[in-house]
Amino acid sequence: MINTVDNVKAKIRDVADFPKKGILFRDITTAIKDADTLKVIIDYLCDQFKDVKVDYIAGIESRGFIFGMPMAYKMDAGFVPVRKPNKLPAETISQEYQLEYGTDKIEIHKDAFGPGDNVLIVDDLLATGGTAEAACKLVKKTGANLVGIGFLIELTDLNGKEKLKDCGKIVSMLKY
Amino acid sequence: MINTVDNVKAKIRDVADFPKKGILFRDITTAIKDADTLKVIIDYLCDQFKDVKVDYIAGIESRGFIFGMPMAYKMDAGFVPVRKPNKLPAETISQEYQLEYGTDKIEIHKDAFGPGDNVLIVDDLLATGGTAEAACKLVKKTGANLVGIGFLIELTDLNGKEKLKDCGKIVSMLKY
Repeated sequence: MINTVDNVKAKIRDVADFPKKGILFRDITTAIKDADTLKVIIDYLCDQFKDVKVDYIAGIESRGFIFGMPMAYKMDAGFVPVRKPNKLPAETISQEYQLEYGTDKIEIHKDAFGPGDNVLIVDDLLATGGTAEAACKLVKKTGANLVGIGFLIELTDLNGKEKLKDCGKIVSMLKY
Repeated sequence: MINTVDNVKAKIRDVADFPKKGILFRDITTAIKDADTLKVIIDYLCDQFKDVKVDYIAGIESRGFIFGMPMAYKMDAGFVPVRKPNKLPAETISQEYQLEYGTDKIEIHKDAFGPGDNVLIVDDLLATGGTAEAACKLVKKTGANLVGIGFLIELTDLNGKEKLKDCGKIVSMLKY
């Protein structure tokens, strides 16, 4: 019997050697261009967090916008973009994280949310977990309550979940 | 009497001198972090195109993802990202457009949609119209039927609409 998760997995396109040689890229565009699959993904992820009142979805640039906004719409939550440096116009707080070589940074608006707010982070992919961990730290810096993180895809071999032990409920719909 | 559009306008934050001196930036983040306003925006834009069956929403990177995805969810349409070069993993078609100095390019996957499909383009802001015009050309190259373009904001002084005369129904919720 084919279940919902396997149906969605069948819509993900594997692209070899993208963005560089040796990487097998999981292309989500073939899943979300299918209206039924798009709906199944959003409903599944929302359903995993239905026991908590989510006040804000924090979506990580830019594929976290793709999944986070319809979730916010469905869950009656606000949406807050987590962006790369210098993209947000007003005062921000930021969080550095390690890359393979060097560091990078993500930011949210300082007045995005605060103590007492329930925040759910959303991104498309859990790989090494570096960006997601930084997003968790950002949310906690505001004093908000971190509900958890929802991903469409988890690359389990990379053990990203290890970095997210204090980040609430971690959900990934598709595991590879 | 304050109407829906004015209520949403009141949630947009004006930021002076961003991204550079002399520009008054219309910050949408204060609107979409409010759950009710987010819903009003998405419902308004969808309602403007309710007379046509939309098969695909084409959202322009990256704020077009923010508004386009919940519209796709609500309208039972698929979502296709229109991206900057080298971001999409599979075979693409691209369209150049003029910037103040030089040119830029946007791309969609070649197999995103095709003849017979009804496509609605979505972006946050209509300024000079260069990117939107390029997105229209891209959609037409595929042979798909261009329903129109939905924007949250239009900067009317810049006359962007002039470039979009052959692009179907042009809707902008907030005019400045």
